[in-house]
Amino acid sequence: MELPSLQEQVREEKVGRKMYELIAKLYPICRSITGNGVRETLHILQQYIPLEIHEVPTGTPVFDWTIPKEWNVREAYIKNHLGEKVIDFQNSNLHLVSYSVPIKKKMPLAELKEHLFTLPDHPAWIPYRTSYYQEDWGFCLSHTQLSEFKDEEYEVCIDSSLKEGSLTYGEYYLPGVMQDEFLISCHICHPSLCNDNLSGIALATYLAKSLTPLPLRYSYRFLFIPGTIGAITWLSLNEGRVYRIKHGLVVAGVGDSGKFTYKKSRQGNAEIDHAVIQILHESGENYEIINFIPYGYDERQYCSPGFDLPVGCLMRTPHSRYPEYHTSADNLDFVKPEFLEGSFSKYLSVLNAIENNRKYVNLNPKCEPQLGKRKLYDGMEGEKKKVIDPLAMLWVLNMSDAEHRLLDIAALAQLPFDKIQAAARLLLEKKLLKEIKIPNPKR
Amino acid sequence: MELPSLQEQVREEKVGRKMYELIAKLYPICRSITGNGVRETLHILQQYIPLEIHEVPTGTPVFDWTIPKEWNVREAYIKNHLGEKVIDFQNSNLHLVSYSVPIKKKMPLAELKEHLFTLPDHPAWIPYRTSYYQEDWGFCLSHTQLSEFKDEEYEVCIDSSLKEGSLTYGEYYLPGVMQDEFLISCHICHPSLCNDNLSGIALATYLAKSLTPLPLRYSYRFLFIPGTIGAITWLSLNEGRVYRIKHGLVVAGVGDSGKFTYKKSRQGNAEIDHAVIQILHESGENYEIINFIPYGYDERQYCSPGFDLPVGCLMRTPHSRYPEYHTSADNLDFVKPEFLEGSFSKYLSVLNAIENNRKYVNLNPKCEPQLGKRKLYDGMEGEKKKVIDPLAMLWVLNMSDAEHRLLDIAALAQLPFDKIQAAARLLLEKKLLKEIKIPNPKR
Amino acid sequence: MELPSLQEQVREEKVGRKMYELIAKLYPICRSITGNGVRETLHILQQYIPLEIHEVPTGTPVFDWTIPKEWNVREAYIKNHLGEKVIDFQNSNLHLVSYSVPIKKKMPLAELKEHLFTLPDHPAWIPYRTSYYQEDWGFCLSHTQLSEFKDEEYEVCIDSSLKEGSLTYGEYYLPGVMQDEFLISCHICHPSLCNDNLSGIALATYLAKSLTPLPLRYSYRFLFIPGTIGAITWLSLNEGRVYRIKHGLVVAGVGDSGKFTYKKSRQGNAEIDHAVIQILHESGENYEIINFIPYGYDERQYCSPGFDLPVGCLMRTPHSRYPEYHTSADNLDFVKPEFLEGSFSKYLSVLNAIENNRKYVNLNPKCEPQLGKRKLYDGMEGEKKKVIDPLAMLWVLNMSDAEHRLLDIAALAQLPFDKIQAAARLLLEKKLLKEIKIPNPKR
Repeated sequence: MELPSLQEQVREEKVGRKMYELIAKLYPICRSITGNGVRETLHILQQYIPLEIHEVPTGTPVFDWTIPKEWNVREAYIKNHLGEKVIDFQNSNLHLVSYSVPIKKKMPLAELKEHLFTLPDHPAWIPYRTSYYQEDWGFCLSHTQLSEFKDEEYEVCIDSSLKEGSLTYGEYYLPGVMQDEFLISCHICHPSLCNDNLSGIALATYLAKSLTPLPLRYSYRFLFIPGTIGAITWLSLNEGRVYRIKHGLVVAGVGDSGKFTYKKSRQGNAEIDHAVIQILHESGENYEIINFIPYGYDERQYCSPGFDLPVGCLMRTPHSRYPEYHTSADNLDFVKPEFLEGSFSKYLSVLNAIENNRKYVNLNPKCEPQLGKRKLYDGMEGEKKKVIDPLAMLWVLNMSDAEHRLLDIAALAQLPFDKIQAAARLLLEKKLLKEIKIPNPKR
Repeated sequence: MELPSLQEQVREEKVGRKMYELIAKLYPICRSITGNGVRETLHILQQYIPLEIHEVPTGTPVFDWTIPKEWNVREAYIKNHLGEKVIDFQNSNLHLVSYSVPIKKKMPLAELKEHLFTLPDHPAWIPYRTSYYQEDWGFCLSHTQLSEFKDEEYEVCIDSSLKEGSLTYGEYYLPGVMQDEFLISCHICHPSLCNDNLSGIALATYLAKSLTPLPLRYSYRFLFIPGTIGAITWLSLNEGRVYRIKHGLVVAGVGDSGKFTYKKSRQGNAEIDHAVIQILHESGENYEIINFIPYGYDERQYCSPGFDLPVGCLMRTPHSRYPEYHTSADNLDFVKPEFLEGSFSKYLSVLNAIENNRKYVNLNPKCEPQLGKRKLYDGMEGEKKKVIDPLAMLWVLNMSDAEHRLLDIAALAQLPFDKIQAAARLLLEKKLLKEIKIPNPKR
Repeated sequence: MELPSLQEQVREEKVGRKMYELIAKLYPICRSITGNGVRETLHILQQYIPLEIHEVPTGTPVFDWTIPKEWNVREAYIKNHLGEKVIDFQNSNLHLVSYSVPIKKKMPLAELKEHLFTLPDHPAWIPYRTSYYQEDWGFCLSHTQLSEFKDEEYEVCIDSSLKEGSLTYGEYYLPGVMQDEFLISCHICHPSLCNDNLSGIALATYLAKSLTPLPLRYSYRFLFIPGTIGAITWLSLNEGRVYRIKHGLVVAGVGDSGKFTYKKSRQGNAEIDHAVIQILHESGENYEIINFIPYGYDERQYCSPGFDLPVGCLMRTPHSRYPEYHTSADNLDFVKPEFLEGSFSKYLSVLNAIENNRKYVNLNPKCEPQLGKRKLYDGMEGEKKKVIDPLAMLWVLNMSDAEHRLLDIAALAQLPFDKIQAAARLLLEKKLLKEIKIPNPKR
């Protein structure tokens, strides 16, 4: 049985550049937790992967929450007393506080100011603000823009609708040999913000696209959902199937130049935690591991105590730790193809480690087998000689005792997972190992 | 159900000053492991708390030991050949080696010197010495005093009695809702020494006084006992009740300026250990944690392998680590009201943590509950807004899985116990949590 | 019951010097994995200890391996065109690649060079090379020697035999009270190389000699075997008895000036691991602990997953970490009597710790026993006062709870094992302890 690595099988050329182009295509769309921007986004993704689009009606109870009204905007602006638009939603969808209720009214600056939000420390940037569950309205603008406002009357217009409709999310299920699932989840509720989280959407999309033609052991479930309410909705609708999720990653903030940060699952010691730590460790790059905290992205829901799923979050710079976070500066200049490509590559390595984290028994457990007579030692033939590390073979043989799996062995040996995997593959070929199958047939 | 913290409930004003005054009142009394000095001390404490005084007759077997004869002193001095008292017990009760047998005899300096003890490195200080279980006599004096002794005949007089009597100790039992006990133990056998251990006596007394009017979950047992033999006696007489002790602290050396030192219980991982470490950690002050060693104060007895009680020792500078230890320099200048007050405050925080270290279940364990609709999130009303940390709420909700208790959660969250306790109180009020009661009714 | 330490009982004077002399005697012999050099070596060892010599015929299957043909050499040389011997096996047995097949042939330098091995970085040294399982021939020489070779015809003569015979190994079984065994294993297959591993042979020999007259709790098994194939052979022939091995050490590289290095057993947490770490730690010397890796000496076989024996390797500088390793520079100047003696002493201390790593119960577990009345405390009599540390007594009493053994106590107390052992001996004498026997009678 051949066990080529996922990295060897995936043939998506210039994937960083392609991810960047997808981000650029999605950037102008005004997304929120509901509405047409989400639908438009998901339709674009359907050009890449056969995404299923779900609509969940307003009012549907999902655990402690309720699907909110659907929000859409036609236009929104502030005009000065000359009738000039000084702020226009057409220029940037960040200008409008998400879920702003409709209004059309003249008011003096003093009254207006209570609804204006700026970032005095970054006077050129527009902040990103929402008011999902408290009916209100507001505009975000740069501090420089605000400083040009005069003490005069302004006309405010928000032509939005907040009414019965539905919450929209996308789902793509890629079946593998087992029903056990690997969950990849990203949030799609942010408007023109690139790193958070168009980068996550692009990475999940290209990962899904790349895996589609491959023979896979696990089944993969990709979720493109609005943050918080989307995860709660999916969990509520799929409660009976959740037990199948054996590993998961929340993808967010993977396009900036920062080092990788992995936030462990609530379990803290899950296979996904070991896999990501191994891959980051062997990269030789700087990285950071943080323990689970009940704040952040949708791992908050997946790791709530009633589910406690083995879901971590692999990102670059965590939310709130970069000034551009949730501002107009998280734009197409902030993310770069090479960083996206590096993130894609890390995800692929992690998935490969999980796919191939198998358990073997050494069929020759008493003393070492004679590698020389099988031409496995010094005298390895041709091409394999370069890739198969004899020490990796000794580690796999010594630790294949029905207890250790390949990730455990890589960690003990302090060798890259790929070397351990390649050694195991060769030893299996030579009938020195036998796989111990996890009893997990398709149900 | 309200869960105000002990710190909020205790209303003893200027407690450091009051503890210092109690120390000053007890300072002149000559105490030993038996005798009238101990009785007098306990009678003074009865002015503060309703202490029960126990007398255990000489000769009573207590495990491997036997209650010794009772020792009392009327007078003790050394006169020179002119009949002048060069050393007088009236001036300092440290002058007499504790448990010195009676003697009235003239002798040359050479013979006398075998019974004189000084501290050459600290020539102005008088050492503190005992000879409980080997009948002997001796005087302690400053090295300066000794240097003035001439080669002449001296008259030694020790008018002490060593005869059948009893060992005296004080006990105060403060019942709580449960029969499970928190033990606070201090030694009362030292004469004019302030930090070791009048500071411990004062702290235990004011702790007992402060807790008395409060509703308490645990029952509290305060022991004022002579060191070693007192603890052995109490354990021997109360062997059948010892299992009720669920937590305990030996109080000693809490009046000096040193940083806090916590010596862990023999178990090393007991709830009391977690509580003290949490409180010291969150204080932001410098502190030291040391593992259990079978040497020190009465935790030696409580933590003997036949009992192995969860009893630690929270002190400032440990015994033997400051030069003033067991000398006349451990006097009223060495301890200070502010250090006593700081120690009192730490003990109270530890007791509060144990009292409130409860276990809850999140009644909404699947995904986060919607805090916003309960006005618990951003929009918290009035005063509570200032004290309830939303992150603390998320931690309590996420970890209230019938496994973690509040101390565990505080440690995981790296947040002060008070914040976690306040968050739990609010969530309980909002019916988002339910307490899991420890099945421990009054028997 | 007396428990004197092994160190007190062993009376081998100047053992470092004697070990060095044994090394010097064995140095000239040409050893390999089979052949007369091994037999001669073992016969010399029989002058020291009653070694049993085993012969296992060529062709015998041993697990995945087969006993190879026996190899012997009469002479081997290279002559130049003048008929002068430029390389002669008589000068150094390292000149001949071990297991070289017979050859007698003239050839030009170019052809010869493919069979010549040197160390360009150390031009004066001869490397050590073998070709056990691939039939071939070759000569090792200094790079300086090679540089004098001219482009002319050379005559190569290797008068060796490679034919049916046997593999020879030595075994010495020293019975103790229990059938449980302590294994000491060293490899004997290297020719004139002192540190690797004549030092190991000498240490094992003198250890065996020293222990022989002593009363021992464990039975000791000393193996003098060719590396790899010897260990595999012994394990194959003794498979049914292997379970008796409760502790083991592979002895190698114990004569150089380097600090001690202990490679832990595969189990990693075995009693032998604790013992060695304790002894190295308490020495105050610099040392290094490394985790098991499936590469090194014969622990590779003892720790293969089918056996997983608690066998570590206590050496000085590990193989490959010193330039003299496997070269002619690993000679009689490289090892020194004082380093050999230091290694002997560490092994003896480790064996003593294992022999005396007993478990006791405190017969007075409730509170401390009164040491004073037994003259055990301050007032200890005469000589013992100097050796018995009262704190060690308190530790042994406190931790003798039927769970901790003396090595555990020494580690907790951070006291030398000898002090803990002496304290236990005295407390046992005073009937304050009782040993808990391990139920392991002679079967």
